[in-house]
Amino acid sequence: MSEGARVWLIPDGYIPEQSTGEGRSHEAICVLNSSDTDARLSIVFYFEDQEPIKGVSVTVPAERTRHVRTDLPDHIGGVEVPRGMPYAVRVESDVPVVVQHSRMDTSQEALALMTTLAHPVAR
Amino acid sequence: MSEGARVWLIPDGYIPEQSTGEGRSHEAICVLNSSDTDARLSIVFYFEDQEPIKGVSVTVPAERTRHVRTDLPDHIGGVEVPRGMPYAVRVESDVPVVVQHSRMDTSQEALALMTTLAHPVAR
Amino acid sequence: MSEGARVWLIPDGYIPEQSTGEGRSHEAICVLNSSDTDARLSIVFYFEDQEPIKGVSVTVPAERTRHVRTDLPDHIGGVEVPRGMPYAVRVESDVPVVVQHSRMDTSQEALALMTTLAHPVAR
Amino acid sequence: MSEGARVWLIPDGYIPEQSTGEGRSHEAICVLNSSDTDARLSIVFYFEDQEPIKGVSVTVPAERTRHVRTDLPDHIGGVEVPRGMPYAVRVESDVPVVVQHSRMDTSQEALALMTTLAHPVAR
Repeated sequence: MSEGARVWLIPDGYIPEQSTGEGRSHEAICVLNSSDTDARLSIVFYFEDQEPIKGVSVTVPAERTRHVRTDLPDHIGGVEVPRGMPYAVRVESDVPVVVQHSRMDTSQEALALMTTLAHPVAR
Repeated sequence: MSEGARVWLIPDGYIPEQSTGEGRSHEAICVLNSSDTDARLSIVFYFEDQEPIKGVSVTVPAERTRHVRTDLPDHIGGVEVPRGMPYAVRVESDVPVVVQHSRMDTSQEALALMTTLAHPVAR
Repeated sequence: MSEGARVWLIPDGYIPEQSTGEGRSHEAICVLNSSDTDARLSIVFYFEDQEPIKGVSVTVPAERTRHVRTDLPDHIGGVEVPRGMPYAVRVESDVPVVVQHSRMDTSQEALALMTTLAHPVAR
Repeated sequence: MSEGARVWLIPDGYIPEQSTGEGRSHEAICVLNSSDTDARLSIVFYFEDQEPIKGVSVTVPAERTRHVRTDLPDHIGGVEVPRGMPYAVRVESDVPVVVQHSRMDTSQEALALMTTLAHPVAR
């Protein structure tokens, strides 16, 4: 079973600087690996005015999902994505997976959510 | 008339633990069957650290929509999806359908919404 | 120039019953016709437990957008889509267009938004 | 490496008139150029009842993202997109890119977000 794509692109990354209430503003790269093989991901972070950060490794086991928080350095190999700065993401996997990107913004009272599937690249 | 796809994948499932006000936090797998044949769905729920739950059956009649609530066990064959735990979903149908996934989050004051079409798999 | 698709499907339609503040809860089927020919649309509304409403006509002129409000009968040929009831939408056009579906929910304090592109059907 | 598409379409553009709190209501066309060549974009803005505005130029350097604010004329060649008026967007690039469109709405208390990938046109 081969479901999804090997390369996914996310243009709108942004971790808000402010948070209110119990939920801290954050983003997650949500991956579903429905295959029977572990997926090794290589992630690139792009910015507006600086060189990309390449080669971040994440594993998603067979028949598992992984919600990778981009505000938590221990989820992404120690990388610190700056808050309040636009960024973008490229995910490459050695087996087909599906990638969705979501933001929780609690910078004003109450929280806001947004999500979209990433753009799959046919290979 | 054959519209949509037979397999759909949703990486970002999450039912918030908290609710405020009248609207209870929930998610829905929204299916449109525009064909003239009833659609029999088989749903799989994936998690981060446990085996998937497979083989949940749902029927969507011909020329009908069904908004399947994942927080209501009687909508999904008695399965209880834990609140506050990341999950993902795979939907397979015997006729082509279209699948969209939406979350209502009322964990802080006011509510937040997010939605995306699921990822269709070409067969 | 032929951009988009002729058939689009939207599974998650729902117009909230409640509204607060100045913004009334509503949904819109947003269409972009980037061609140099007027687009004649035929819209179908699907429900969970009743027959679909077919044959609603809307025109989107050449090189124009039209944000069709589903809560305003005069936008959709006099049809009244019930509030608080799940529905789904099929849009067919005689020239390729692009369709996006958005909801504004003001049923609790503050407002919430969600949007997604509809699912295009290859013909 | 050629990732994405050269033409992208966004039907639901709308910059709310009102803002509350610190975050001003706005929209952004978020572009990721993962190639090793600068991307020259040509943007068209469509409206419901007036001629489109064509030929707006934006550059996204190689291996960079650009979050183009449509409420800031200096981001889009001096064009002023009216607040409170539906619009739509077409982006054409000389190299493949990926385009996502997001709205922040702070017109009532707290903020709301929505986002979707634009619709890619195969060429």
